[in-house]
Amino acid sequence: MSTLHPFDQAMTLHAVTANAWRGETSDGYMHVVGPFGGFIAGVMLRAIINEPARRGDPVALTVNYCGAVEKGPFEIATKLQRGGKYNQHWSMTLVQAGDTKVSATAVFAIRDNVFSHQPATAPVAPAPEAVAAIAKFGLSWLDRYEYREIEGKLDVMSGPHDPIKPASSLSWIKDEPDRPLDYVSLASISDCALGRLVLVRGTMPIFGTVSLTTYFHATATEIAELGVLPVLVSAAAKRFHANFHDHDVQIWGKDGALIASGSQIVWYKE
Amino acid sequence: MSTLHPFDQAMTLHAVTANAWRGETSDGYMHVVGPFGGFIAGVMLRAIINEPARRGDPVALTVNYCGAVEKGPFEIATKLQRGGKYNQHWSMTLVQAGDTKVSATAVFAIRDNVFSHQPATAPVAPAPEAVAAIAKFGLSWLDRYEYREIEGKLDVMSGPHDPIKPASSLSWIKDEPDRPLDYVSLASISDCALGRLVLVRGTMPIFGTVSLTTYFHATATEIAELGVLPVLVSAAAKRFHANFHDHDVQIWGKDGALIASGSQIVWYKE
Repeated sequence: MSTLHPFDQAMTLHAVTANAWRGETSDGYMHVVGPFGGFIAGVMLRAIINEPARRGDPVALTVNYCGAVEKGPFEIATKLQRGGKYNQHWSMTLVQAGDTKVSATAVFAIRDNVFSHQPATAPVAPAPEAVAAIAKFGLSWLDRYEYREIEGKLDVMSGPHDPIKPASSLSWIKDEPDRPLDYVSLASISDCALGRLVLVRGTMPIFGTVSLTTYFHATATEIAELGVLPVLVSAAAKRFHANFHDHDVQIWGKDGALIASGSQIVWYKE
Repeated sequence: MSTLHPFDQAMTLHAVTANAWRGETSDGYMHVVGPFGGFIAGVMLRAIINEPARRGDPVALTVNYCGAVEKGPFEIATKLQRGGKYNQHWSMTLVQAGDTKVSATAVFAIRDNVFSHQPATAPVAPAPEAVAAIAKFGLSWLDRYEYREIEGKLDVMSGPHDPIKPASSLSWIKDEPDRPLDYVSLASISDCALGRLVLVRGTMPIFGTVSLTTYFHATATEIAELGVLPVLVSAAAKRFHANFHDHDVQIWGKDGALIASGSQIVWYKE
């Protein structure tokens, strides 16, 4: 019996040949059909972290969801596009039965203690322990996170919203069960803020992320210091138009430091 | 003598073989060393727009600046990673003398008239004609745009800022001379907001964009309707830390519609 945390089990990759990794979808991190987008983001980043030629820590990750990943095994091919003195640029593809299902790029870098300044201020939020955790949903990936919703609560039970509601949300989120935060779990958490269409319209329309970009602001040491604490996740959409909407996210530590930020673009049918 | 607009001259690509395009850096769109990042973003998108297999319009573009592009010719290789009913996923690399200098991904899609809603509000700004255009700088790419700065004015003449200044800016921007807006010029304009470090610190430190992501919200028809009007560009940085800072941008039409939005992550030395 494995003593690995479910997330670490899910993120396990085995070397096939140079620059090729084999993984498998995880029953613990499935969405309605196919794996949770955060699982995919995490595993694409994990492949590079595993690479012997990798230097430094993640700075940027873009994941393009090209086609439906099916339950079962997959292979991730990695390519070091260029490695400089400070920065590395990687490209990755996830393939199932010869079909490219995911393409991605990542920037890694050696980071140092230079000019530091945070113009952005973390949203005002009650302490996590003052906010009730939402009940489990029975949707496997969602149940692998503890959500303490402050604003923009998920509400699909009261029917379509009329008028529509705000596109922003604020929640404390952490792995369930507890797991120390790292870059891979942050990549996954960057896709944890719930669907903006659901918040706004109160319905469960057909939608799917087509591209997700995450920037990592905190160093590995700073992330390790956060331990198993929940992170404060603020998210919003600026425009829903012509089948696509954006969805930005900011991930804050308990001390108000911005740990990661990013955005995704989401396709919706109607 | 060409009658093409300087931007269209700069964006000209010639087919080499299937999925390979040849272009050249443009003296009109150079930064201090190498081409303006917006030129690169534009030309990477142009390559896909030129592809016979391309369907639909751009939705997302991520450009990774892997290495210094040198003055002269380059080749862009394109690959259709996957084409679905509504969406296409492309990957691109820009190569000079066998070295990958840029990697990129793009999502194209067939877009339709479905649910539309813009939660974000355009910043309040005076009309473009009420704001003075900044003087030409003698930096070639900068002189190819007309900037009417409202907030976050460029100021490197008064020495280092003490205290440091805000990381946000607001400007009306358009091509110089006039050129009707399209997706390619929008991709370039998404890199037009000036360096956040310069705004904040009032110095000209060593820095460079490593990755840029742009989402296109407006349809081709809506963009065509904007014609040669300037667009309102708001930009800000949330955190400068450990050699990298983010830099988000929103591009608004004169009617307040959000045309495009995105972000970049920028390396800085000290």
